[in-house]
Amino acid sequence: MGARALPVGSLHTLMTKVGLGDAEDHMVVVSVTLFVTLLCACIVMGHLMEEFQWISESVTAIILGFCTGIVVLVTSKGASSHVLQFDEELFFIYLLPPIIFNAGFQVKKKQFFRNFVAIMLYGVIGVFISFAIITAGSRFMFPKFGLDKLVIGDYLALGTIFSATDSVCVLQVLSQDESPLLYSLVFGEGVVNDATSVVLFRAVQKLAFKDFTGMEVLRICGSFLQLFFSSTVLGIAIGLLSAYIIKTLYLARHSTDREIALMTIMAYLSYILAELFYLSGILTVFFCGIVMSHYTWHNVTESSRVTTKHGFATMSFIAETFIFLYVGMDALDVDKWRMVQLNAGQSFGLFATTLMLILVGRAAFVFPLSALSNYMRKSSDTKISFRQQIVIWWAGLMRGAVSIALAFNQFTSAGDAKSPEYATAITTTIGIVLFTLMVFGTATKPLMRWVLPPTSRSDYDYTTSEPNTPKVFAFDAGFRAPLLGPDAQAGSPLGPPRRSSLAMLLAAPTNFIHDAWRAFDDAYMRPVFGGRGFVPYNSDILTNAEDDAAYPFHSPFRPSF
Amino acid sequence: MGARALPVGSLHTLMTKVGLGDAEDHMVVVSVTLFVTLLCACIVMGHLMEEFQWISESVTAIILGFCTGIVVLVTSKGASSHVLQFDEELFFIYLLPPIIFNAGFQVKKKQFFRNFVAIMLYGVIGVFISFAIITAGSRFMFPKFGLDKLVIGDYLALGTIFSATDSVCVLQVLSQDESPLLYSLVFGEGVVNDATSVVLFRAVQKLAFKDFTGMEVLRICGSFLQLFFSSTVLGIAIGLLSAYIIKTLYLARHSTDREIALMTIMAYLSYILAELFYLSGILTVFFCGIVMSHYTWHNVTESSRVTTKHGFATMSFIAETFIFLYVGMDALDVDKWRMVQLNAGQSFGLFATTLMLILVGRAAFVFPLSALSNYMRKSSDTKISFRQQIVIWWAGLMRGAVSIALAFNQFTSAGDAKSPEYATAITTTIGIVLFTLMVFGTATKPLMRWVLPPTSRSDYDYTTSEPNTPKVFAFDAGFRAPLLGPDAQAGSPLGPPRRSSLAMLLAAPTNFIHDAWRAFDDAYMRPVFGGRGFVPYNSDILTNAEDDAAYPFHSPFRPSF
Repeated sequence: MGARALPVGSLHTLMTKVGLGDAEDHMVVVSVTLFVTLLCACIVMGHLMEEFQWISESVTAIILGFCTGIVVLVTSKGASSHVLQFDEELFFIYLLPPIIFNAGFQVKKKQFFRNFVAIMLYGVIGVFISFAIITAGSRFMFPKFGLDKLVIGDYLALGTIFSATDSVCVLQVLSQDESPLLYSLVFGEGVVNDATSVVLFRAVQKLAFKDFTGMEVLRICGSFLQLFFSSTVLGIAIGLLSAYIIKTLYLARHSTDREIALMTIMAYLSYILAELFYLSGILTVFFCGIVMSHYTWHNVTESSRVTTKHGFATMSFIAETFIFLYVGMDALDVDKWRMVQLNAGQSFGLFATTLMLILVGRAAFVFPLSALSNYMRKSSDTKISFRQQIVIWWAGLMRGAVSIALAFNQFTSAGDAKSPEYATAITTTIGIVLFTLMVFGTATKPLMRWVLPPTSRSDYDYTTSEPNTPKVFAFDAGFRAPLLGPDAQAGSPLGPPRRSSLAMLLAAPTNFIHDAWRAFDDAYMRPVFGGRGFVPYNSDILTNAEDDAAYPFHSPFRPSF
Repeated sequence: MGARALPVGSLHTLMTKVGLGDAEDHMVVVSVTLFVTLLCACIVMGHLMEEFQWISESVTAIILGFCTGIVVLVTSKGASSHVLQFDEELFFIYLLPPIIFNAGFQVKKKQFFRNFVAIMLYGVIGVFISFAIITAGSRFMFPKFGLDKLVIGDYLALGTIFSATDSVCVLQVLSQDESPLLYSLVFGEGVVNDATSVVLFRAVQKLAFKDFTGMEVLRICGSFLQLFFSSTVLGIAIGLLSAYIIKTLYLARHSTDREIALMTIMAYLSYILAELFYLSGILTVFFCGIVMSHYTWHNVTESSRVTTKHGFATMSFIAETFIFLYVGMDALDVDKWRMVQLNAGQSFGLFATTLMLILVGRAAFVFPLSALSNYMRKSSDTKISFRQQIVIWWAGLMRGAVSIALAFNQFTSAGDAKSPEYATAITTTIGIVLFTLMVFGTATKPLMRWVLPPTSRSDYDYTTSEPNTPKVFAFDAGFRAPLLGPDAQAGSPLGPPRRSSLAMLLAAPTNFIHDAWRAFDDAYMRPVFGGRGFVPYNSDILTNAEDDAAYPFHSPFRPSF
């Protein structure tokens, strides 16, 4: 780093040299400082904004990023916006993994797997429906607004770009504790949806479609299923490996930091390995998070549990804020705005058409697939009501960083748009992302309050400060354990009372599967990979582990065998 | 990232495409995967090696990195070693800050400030002495080994490069709990020493010395003092700001993750701001860590304390392992080895001379300055014994990543050595670093056991698993609080009994300063910035903070007012 080659002299002299001489080398430091300062500001402002329930943290970050973008642009006199450039690599390799991993790590597993069928319907079939509608619609409508030089591959890419729900924003708008069913459905869909979109996008980019034959559709489906399966297996395998290593080697004997480090690094390893093998890192790291929370987390010491739980959440929080800041700053990518050759009317037409296609494309699968899902659910209290369907439809309208990353990948090379049409596609994407995040994102909470008033909700509690999840149990509240072990939720309002296996098989297959899984887990998995109640050295920790030598709050909350 | 533009088809097809087509785009993923896998291996192997007390984690990492380097080199058939290239920017901007911050955060403050004078003597005067000896020695000796084209600026740079003790390695070889006095002296010196070396290096690089006039020396000294002062003030200011924000806004009301994020980001902000203003980020982040542990840490919730304590330690641990892996891999920078035009004898002569100069340069200040320090210490039980001086001399002989980073900065441009002489300087540096880390580093623990056998040590306890620090107190053991509040150490074996201010002023000025500071701290600082026993909403946390709603182990360990 040339910034090390520094002048010696008074501080004043030093200061005046900033921006001169080795300015280019110093740029890294300047932009890192800018971002770090903005992150601090976002955290503090997000906290202050929390009083206004309808302004979410993400919107705060976007606005702050946008304002900073203006300042930077004015300071640089409208010149290059390279500090603002959206960097796909940064996004996909460093920012996305902690967010998705944390989601898997903290997700209420029982909820997720109970709604597994619905999530898959939304996340896979739904994306295909939305993709088809948006592709066909844009193919038909875009040329009317002067965008007539796009080829079929571009339209297909647009279809996937605008089908990718922003799961990051969903996390901020819906609360797992306040509305577990909706959160589980919408967020679960978001993760699967991200993966589906990326896979579809890859398919579209690679195969030079001339026309849309049935064979191609089948190939895409086959490829998707294979990718989904391989990614899931990889995530589960690495999660189990981490549990096994930590259980067997008992790393905490010498240093608790080592087990935290190993968990963190193996989680990341799952993502990057999936990327290495051209699988879906998002799916892999999500399932790795689930497995780690189910096994590995129970094999580490008490302090490591607290640290991983809060540490992963914090990393995710920082990455989210970072992304939204980025998206906000990126809106001012002047080079691309200048390249657009459409007039205001055409631009608005494009924008409105895309928005309409997104709305229709999502409605076209949420309502039919919800009906299908309800048809398959025998018990009436787990059916998805029409009002809930509206929220599901609405909460998945946000488009975010994944859309932007895919758009940059399709329509730019080395950050520059290849043609005015491509620049238009980029600016439209940015416009849609900003609009949906800010308008739809902000409106979600009021909408939920209106569509689902507290009295009509079975699982959504908005007004009380005490959420009606099992958090109120002493141990669970500390460690948010309900997210981390299926047992803990046995007494939750949503958990049906236990019945015989046969009765359950007739009534609700999901519950039977769950019970069968638990029996298998207790008999074969936990003895090997650890997990709640299966850590062999519980009592040793109190005397052996250096760091926890006399850790005062151990014993009462350790589960007994 | 072009790696997103992926083929669709069978997994087999996908796999075979790796390395073809968009191979260059995929390189990032490949190298990240490589490093992440190596980090996992290092953690597991480091754990297994811990049984052999003399092989430290750093040496394990270096060896593993070296072996990987060989494999990569063989795989690439001895071609470019770009994956292995040491990246100064990565090192100074991302890897060093968490290590130094954690050191400040976890340092036993009372020990550090009690030995402040000695630390400053070693870290500032000592570096100047060592720098002078190495510069003069290399100027005199190097031309005899065929290295005759270096100018005076290069020799001065070599003086600073080889005066930078590797504080990272010191952290791994000495234990704060086992030998607090030595740890405090050697590590404290290491931090100040790093800063001094970087400042000296900047001075040397910027001013084109023709000869070494008294005026230049004075200017360097003035510049150093200014930099030291500014850096310290900046670190303290940001630490206090973080304490004030967290105390005033009470971030945990909405989310405990936000306060952890704010602490982390503000810590990093201190470093990067210092770099922005061309100050010493190392010093700044170190003092920021001290202030944060004294004030901010006490203002956050219990779970945030556990998380920050272990989270920061883990980040530091990962960064350290990463650096040593890097250094190990970098040893195989074939391009530079090929450029060297010396024969084996000359190379060995250079290497041996440099090693000798380092040994002499360090001895030349440790023993005289220790005598000076002992002269100023009135109480005989805090004097530094001759045996301890030997350990201090020895434990500071390791040269590490800072040396390599400075050498690359001086002798390369864009990663390539500018001339055969410069390539020789780089390879000599790498050789010295590897040798000192592996030989001196490995030999430190046996040496300490030999020079300072348990019976002769007042503060060094090696054999028992229960360290004789105040860790045995219940609360302290959990949170390692002795590092984080001076009060906690009042009863420690090293803390003298309280006497009147006048008596203390006569006996040991340090203690008087400490008491005066505590009175000031309690009267003015803590009411504003929080800290142990000064958090206004202790009881509120139990009922308000969402995350800690029924956190079971709060009340008994909260200090009362």
